Amino acid sequence: MTTMQLLGRAKAAKAAMALADTQKKNDALHFMAQELLVAREDILAANALDLAAAKGTVSDVMLDRLALSPERIAAMADGMEQVAALPDPVGQVLRRVERPNGLVIERTAVPMGVIAIIYESRPNVTSDAAALALKAGSACVLRGGKQAHRSADAIVTALKRGLERAGLPADALALVEDTSRASANELMTASGYVDLLIPRGGAGLIRACVDNATVPVIETGTGICHIYVDAAADLAMALDIVTNAKCSRPSVCNAAEVCLVHKDAAPAFLPKLRQRLVDGRAAAGEIPVQLRLDERAAAIIDGTSASDADFDTEFLDYILAVRVVDGVQQAMEHIAAHSTGHSECIVTSDDHAARTFLTGVDAAAVYHNASTRFTDGGEFGLGCEMGISTQKLHARGPMGLEELCCYKYLVRGTGQIR
Amino acid sequence: MTTMQLLGRAKAAKAAMALADTQKKNDALHFMAQELLVAREDILAANALDLAAAKGTVSDVMLDRLALSPERIAAMADGMEQVAALPDPVGQVLRRVERPNGLVIERTAVPMGVIAIIYESRPNVTSDAAALALKAGSACVLRGGKQAHRSADAIVTALKRGLERAGLPADALALVEDTSRASANELMTASGYVDLLIPRGGAGLIRACVDNATVPVIETGTGICHIYVDAAADLAMALDIVTNAKCSRPSVCNAAEVCLVHKDAAPAFLPKLRQRLVDGRAAAGEIPVQLRLDERAAAIIDGTSASDADFDTEFLDYILAVRVVDGVQQAMEHIAAHSTGHSECIVTSDDHAARTFLTGVDAAAVYHNASTRFTDGGEFGLGCEMGISTQKLHARGPMGLEELCCYKYLVRGTGQIR
Repeated sequence: MTTMQLLGRAKAAKAAMALADTQKKNDALHFMAQELLVAREDILAANALDLAAAKGTVSDVMLDRLALSPERIAAMADGMEQVAALPDPVGQVLRRVERPNGLVIERTAVPMGVIAIIYESRPNVTSDAAALALKAGSACVLRGGKQAHRSADAIVTALKRGLERAGLPADALALVEDTSRASANELMTASGYVDLLIPRGGAGLIRACVDNATVPVIETGTGICHIYVDAAADLAMALDIVTNAKCSRPSVCNAAEVCLVHKDAAPAFLPKLRQRLVDGRAAAGEIPVQLRLDERAAAIIDGTSASDADFDTEFLDYILAVRVVDGVQQAMEHIAAHSTGHSECIVTSDDHAARTFLTGVDAAAVYHNASTRFTDGGEFGLGCEMGISTQKLHARGPMGLEELCCYKYLVRGTGQIR
Repeated sequence: MTTMQLLGRAKAAKAAMALADTQKKNDALHFMAQELLVAREDILAANALDLAAAKGTVSDVMLDRLALSPERIAAMADGMEQVAALPDPVGQVLRRVERPNGLVIERTAVPMGVIAIIYESRPNVTSDAAALALKAGSACVLRGGKQAHRSADAIVTALKRGLERAGLPADALALVEDTSRASANELMTASGYVDLLIPRGGAGLIRACVDNATVPVIETGTGICHIYVDAAADLAMALDIVTNAKCSRPSVCNAAEVCLVHKDAAPAFLPKLRQRLVDGRAAAGEIPVQLRLDERAAAIIDGTSASDADFDTEFLDYILAVRVVDGVQQAMEHIAAHSTGHSECIVTSDDHAARTFLTGVDAAAVYHNASTRFTDGGEFGLGCEMGISTQKLHARGPMGLEELCCYKYLVRGTGQIR
């Protein structure tokens, strides 16, 4: 089927999804989880073909992302049950006013309609994204990466059976067959068909969507996150936070890429930082962090000299750019010039500096004395997430079920005219 | 100054706007209102030049929209005082959670940054839009129509004096000097400078923004609004609602353009409709409404035959397209195919039909037994409005101060790592 045909069918299915009550949607998620387990052998067989085709052409890290196992499929099914357990956002009255003329106006959460998601190679995104979009009352059109297409197809085939068992249209979930760039462009420009497009992937994909899309887009997930260690920081806490934000999972968007250090803290802090991230890790048999130092930092500790580009790069690796700054104002100026608006942190025991930073830094999440790694739907208490929005329109930070909905006004009268 | 220079200065001014407290912003609005009155003669002189240049090239309606008077300037100043009196959305904690690990996470309303507005000939939009954007804590870049440029320039000059008297940067408010299409395109593609673009104008302008913009846009104001008169409608109420929605101000976006009538109500209702809108108005010396009838309506009353295009046209005039439908389902299908997602109404005393319509119709505002003319910030209790959003992302329906803000998460910890 062509992408436009899939979109036409998804559009036709959106009314049934919008009218489905909570019970029906939860039944569907439950059946979808069951069908994933039933189809386990089919999914693993498809995944084996994907893996065989990819072997030798991609890194081991990529192969691991692509690989499914009985445990990973069980985790995907679990994920669907977890989404079923979350409160239904659709139909919530967000605000209610009764006007002097007797009109009752209710701002009410309603589904977006058709949500399209462009993603890359991790097959579990297929079930995660479908569960969230469907629970939010929308039809869901998925466009995955070429390398995972067989796996995604087997997953979607199983999930569609679950939808049908619940009496919902199988067309409400679709996987785009064409994995070339052309189908991504079709989704970006399918005005009247796609109510919301969410690109989940690298900076290139996101930029292409923002530049070319005529449908509504939410940018996700590019994170050049900064930790600013203030003069008044507890240095042990700062060390723990920087280490966690950099090393606990360097490949994710909420990992730190840059450490800014107050000039008065630098002489004491930087040697400790080097010890912890470089020498200590090497001694413990862990991958040491490569430090890229500005001039003032390089005058205190050893490391690679930073180029200008190092302060504008999402390394997603064991690399940390380090700059010494004069104070909170210069730290904020640096962040304003280089941030992607994801997550930024100040470590300080000075309340005034903390307030200045929290108020003045423009990002989805601004932290005082905690790791940027907490920017996550689960950690924020949303129970799930579709991605981390780095734009300001509609949703910012982790997007849960509420953020996948819009609202409309229901106005009830008794013949009022103006 | 070039448009990009203005934008650079507005961007530099946005931090000062974001940090300004409520008192300072309200002082600025108060001083801006005073300066408008002080500059009254200058503004009227500039307006006289605009009027002289426009005379003979535009309609009398357009000339009236362009014309200022001492009373209109006083009303603009009053409007600024009214915005000052509204609650400040910035800094409101929209949601607060304390996580089991002790993190305190606050979703907090913050300004957009730089809001750009492209509008057409009414000079009062200059002060209205500036007041709303500035009170919402954003810098404001205005790009008005060529015909009103001298007036807008005199108004902005006065308003900037008010900003400065309050200790806020005059650069936080700017009027684009170039009124050619090029400057509109510059605003649409000024990524990194424009945080939100709001086009206020005809369908052509809005379409150009949606197609070409790489900055975030909110579509406003195209309204093909429908009134569906159900079999169970109180016909006197239906007549009042259709008359009000069509005739009270036909040139605005919340005016009705189409009346859908249930086949069982049509024989009784259509003759009354014709009497009220056509013959009655003519007899009273009012402009009669031209009815454009589908075949089934034309079998009951006299009128012009409707073409297909009549059901996809925002007439903004004393013209009403009329179609007879089989029931609420067909009415909803018609609306789904032809609506611009602005305001739609059902007139009925049947609760089931009302519920079906309210739930199933996808529009910013869906009415039961009230005129679509109420879709307005003031009528909805917002105290003001920047326009009516007809998109689903971010804001839908009338946009007040809250809808001109976004949010960020403030996360306070005591050294938490993950």
